[in-house]
Amino acid sequence: MMNIAVAQSGGPTCAINASLVGVFREALKEESIDAVFGSVNGIEGIINNHMIDLKNMILSNEDMELLKQTPSTVLGSCRYKLPDREEDDTVYKQIVKNLQQRQIGAFFYIGGNDSMDTVNKLSQYFREINLDIKVIGIPKTIDNDLCITDHTPGFGSAAKYVAATMQEIVRDSYVYSIPSVTIVEVMGRHAGWLTASSAVLHTIGETAPHLVYVPEAEFSVEKFLKDVRHEMAKHKAVIVAVSEGMEVPEGVQSGVVDNFGHKYLSGIGKYLEEIVRNEIGCKVRSIELNVMQRCSSHICSKTDIDESEAIGSAGVRCALNGETGKVMIFRRINDMPYTVVIESAESSEIANKEKFLPKDFVNSNGNNISKKALSYFVPLIQGELNIIMNHGVPKHFTIQESLLK
Amino acid sequence: MMNIAVAQSGGPTCAINASLVGVFREALKEESIDAVFGSVNGIEGIINNHMIDLKNMILSNEDMELLKQTPSTVLGSCRYKLPDREEDDTVYKQIVKNLQQRQIGAFFYIGGNDSMDTVNKLSQYFREINLDIKVIGIPKTIDNDLCITDHTPGFGSAAKYVAATMQEIVRDSYVYSIPSVTIVEVMGRHAGWLTASSAVLHTIGETAPHLVYVPEAEFSVEKFLKDVRHEMAKHKAVIVAVSEGMEVPEGVQSGVVDNFGHKYLSGIGKYLEEIVRNEIGCKVRSIELNVMQRCSSHICSKTDIDESEAIGSAGVRCALNGETGKVMIFRRINDMPYTVVIESAESSEIANKEKFLPKDFVNSNGNNISKKALSYFVPLIQGELNIIMNHGVPKHFTIQESLLK
Repeated sequence: MMNIAVAQSGGPTCAINASLVGVFREALKEESIDAVFGSVNGIEGIINNHMIDLKNMILSNEDMELLKQTPSTVLGSCRYKLPDREEDDTVYKQIVKNLQQRQIGAFFYIGGNDSMDTVNKLSQYFREINLDIKVIGIPKTIDNDLCITDHTPGFGSAAKYVAATMQEIVRDSYVYSIPSVTIVEVMGRHAGWLTASSAVLHTIGETAPHLVYVPEAEFSVEKFLKDVRHEMAKHKAVIVAVSEGMEVPEGVQSGVVDNFGHKYLSGIGKYLEEIVRNEIGCKVRSIELNVMQRCSSHICSKTDIDESEAIGSAGVRCALNGETGKVMIFRRINDMPYTVVIESAESSEIANKEKFLPKDFVNSNGNNISKKALSYFVPLIQGELNIIMNHGVPKHFTIQESLLK
Repeated sequence: MMNIAVAQSGGPTCAINASLVGVFREALKEESIDAVFGSVNGIEGIINNHMIDLKNMILSNEDMELLKQTPSTVLGSCRYKLPDREEDDTVYKQIVKNLQQRQIGAFFYIGGNDSMDTVNKLSQYFREINLDIKVIGIPKTIDNDLCITDHTPGFGSAAKYVAATMQEIVRDSYVYSIPSVTIVEVMGRHAGWLTASSAVLHTIGETAPHLVYVPEAEFSVEKFLKDVRHEMAKHKAVIVAVSEGMEVPEGVQSGVVDNFGHKYLSGIGKYLEEIVRNEIGCKVRSIELNVMQRCSSHICSKTDIDESEAIGSAGVRCALNGETGKVMIFRRINDMPYTVVIESAESSEIANKEKFLPKDFVNSNGNNISKKALSYFVPLIQGELNIIMNHGVPKHFTIQESLLK
């Protein structure tokens, strides 16, 4: 018999709790696993010995279903990065002590590429000191920028929110008779996956987004204005999707100032809005989808949530098979009918690396998304959960604030 | 036999098309009504004789159900205000000519308090020239600021979006171990109804929003900072709801003005964010819910959509009963079980007027919403439509762009 530990890390998504449910539910089935400890605030909870016995928290199937429809990380999160142990191994010793004290035989870390760095470092350390504690990474990020895996848990739900919301913004933009430009700023630090995914609207007959700008394609203000004018000749309301991670002239992202002298920290949408206003002079607005694109579980993708649970479960089986230092990944077999298998990869091949949009996902003009890309994106946003409601809003599963302190 | 005309006006909501369906469906039942003309871009379509025969557009019950889940105005909108006819009656004559040419016996105008001004002016004019064309207003606005009616179509869906999204933002805000402040800016030009409605979360055990600022209560930056510090002592992640229409120091709000003299507002959220950053120095962010709060039909309130259809239908019956110059209204009989009746009121009593939050809807500190207010808001956000989906996003009903030109 052994116990296991699980933690959640990095920025919130709609699917991190589904992966937690996957780990928990699989552990319940395994006779060799006794307690499941939830580490509070990612790896910090292991370091500080702040863990919760999840069997005392998640009491029923209904709790698990609620958890799957609750965004963000029920156990809290962190952005803590393990130091190199050549420099300082104090933290490593602390982790070993706390895991051993609770007789933990496997640790599952749900997170992005920084968290996979933790999986890599810890598993290497345990091997070197001959400690038999498995360390397995369960990927998540709305950015979809992890290597090797076909896509990442959390991305499909974010993409579904972005597509559904952009379609609604299209309706909203078409009401007036005067020409207009609407710029929608989408998350993505360096890679344009989420911004690109908004082009799935083309598959259902929408002409919008009429322009899509991602960091992977070259961009200039002159080209942008030419593109906008070209689209305005064809459409009354031009819809532009732009990635927050676009390379723009120096100083823009930190230096954009609005009418009131306020600086905008993430300013590409506002920046382009000002350019359209000054250079074209038409009605123009910019919309930042903000954190809603990572936490709008009320319109999550069932495909994403189901897969996120499945990849959590697969992580447990992987550890029980004796593997460690691995990250669970999706390998796509087919777009249509959509088929994926779950496998594992070396954490060293995923940690601290980023995956960018393939060149052929962007059109030849560098201002929209290719048809080829759409067959990649479309399956990921399919299906809806039957959301359990509570007095008009989705019911969330939460842990008492005092237990998380 | 007569024909009728219907138009949509003002800012988009999730419920304007449901009211159009109400008018259309009721007209189908009435043997005395032949064609139903949809005027393109509000009253402008009547003036320019740009109307569509809706029986050629809305072909089935399924079309009507799709229309009910499609946000914004399928017939376009306008912000056109009729001139006083003492000054210029050219437009009035044009309207009469076009209505008569199409043998229109009743005109239904779905819109906010500006549109009710049009209803008032037109019906008075028709009376004075002894023209038997009924003019009936069907209210709509997410601002909920129309007089006499208990609430306005469109408000419940906006309130449901704001509440559901704020609950998701709460989850998103609680992930990290460091203290934070999140400021959510909610629409509402002068009245705080929509911002106040976010407090429905208190009825399901959420402590957020911890602070709610509406234009109806006095506000000062000093008081705000004191409030935030007080809440930070109790909660790790403080959530503040603030109305875009707050009175703030001069120069903060934008000076752009629309045709009715309304200022386009933006900036209070960013402004308060800067204040918290400079004065308290903690992690802080502001989120503008932007147009999503008026067009997120994917999470509309079934109560709102059903009522919006019903009030459209009631408008037709009102006209057939020989009334004119009236605006349809809701009168609430009971909060629980929630019961409303639909009646009519004089358009002169609603046009160009605004209704503000009652004093006792705000707490004594002026920084949150009273319990009493919650029984008003809660029924309005109940129920969900069974949204018909199309490849992962809600299916929308649209009219060919060329027909709207």
